[in-house]
Amino acid sequence: MSRALDAARDASSRGEVPVGAVVTDAAGTILAVAGNRTRELNDPTAHAEMLAIRAACTALGSERLIGCDLHVTLEPCPMCAAAIGFARLERLYYGAPDPKGGGVDHGARVFSHATCHHAPQVYGGIAETDAATLLRDFFAARRQA
Amino acid sequence: MSRALDAARDASSRGEVPVGAVVTDAAGTILAVAGNRTRELNDPTAHAEMLAIRAACTALGSERLIGCDLHVTLEPCPMCAAAIGFARLERLYYGAPDPKGGGVDHGARVFSHATCHHAPQVYGGIAETDAATLLRDFFAARRQA
Repeated sequence: MSRALDAARDASSRGEVPVGAVVTDAAGTILAVAGNRTRELNDPTAHAEMLAIRAACTALGSERLIGCDLHVTLEPCPMCAAAIGFARLERLYYGAPDPKGGGVDHGARVFSHATCHHAPQVYGGIAETDAATLLRDFFAARRQA
Repeated sequence: MSRALDAARDASSRGEVPVGAVVTDAAGTILAVAGNRTRELNDPTAHAEMLAIRAACTALGSERLIGCDLHVTLEPCPMCAAAIGFARLERLYYGAPDPKGGGVDHGARVFSHATCHHAPQVYGGIAETDAATLLRDFFAARRQA
């Protein structure tokens, strides 16, 4: 999660909402690291999780990340949650909960429906304080700007 | 929708699940056309809608597609539905309903939650028979293969 937090800090320094994500394989080796790049890429789908999943799939030459884990600083939104399912990720570790935009433990709760083809094991609240502080400081600075 | 059906047929000929999508602007001009490319790209996020949204955003140089519409041959999954919301698309026209994988009128029903920031106007069942036939024929052929 520390690498994901670093990626979130990098995103913040680029003016992006500070969210970072890392995909690791079954041995714990890092396959991909990404921060949010929606503004830079003019791409509303360029959330940290999506970029990390796509990069890890490219690295493995597969559209499935069997046995791999995703570590992300914020609870994934419904888009990213569904992508996590499609990629067949084994475990999801996330930092801060997101009552307003989350789609795992809030809102659409993507993994809770009978139609969900694959749900990862979910562990929330990992390094939650660091992740939440990053987000709070980013939005506080934007409100003052 | 006829262009979206063409893109779905193209996807089928590449061995991809036959789904096609088109983004049009407020004047009805086509900004982007895409078919499903998850296998070709080894990318579980490369659904037709995602590719069309990303291409349209690139064409406009914006992460929001204000006043634009999405036409897609199959009810979007939760990932694509959330992306439609992030892109602020005005209207969603879809072909066949998808009780097993859809996330608009089935399953996660992404637009139905209080936490959803933007919901498009949704019109389902557009050219439904053509879209559903394409999918049925594709899966029937695969089962025989």
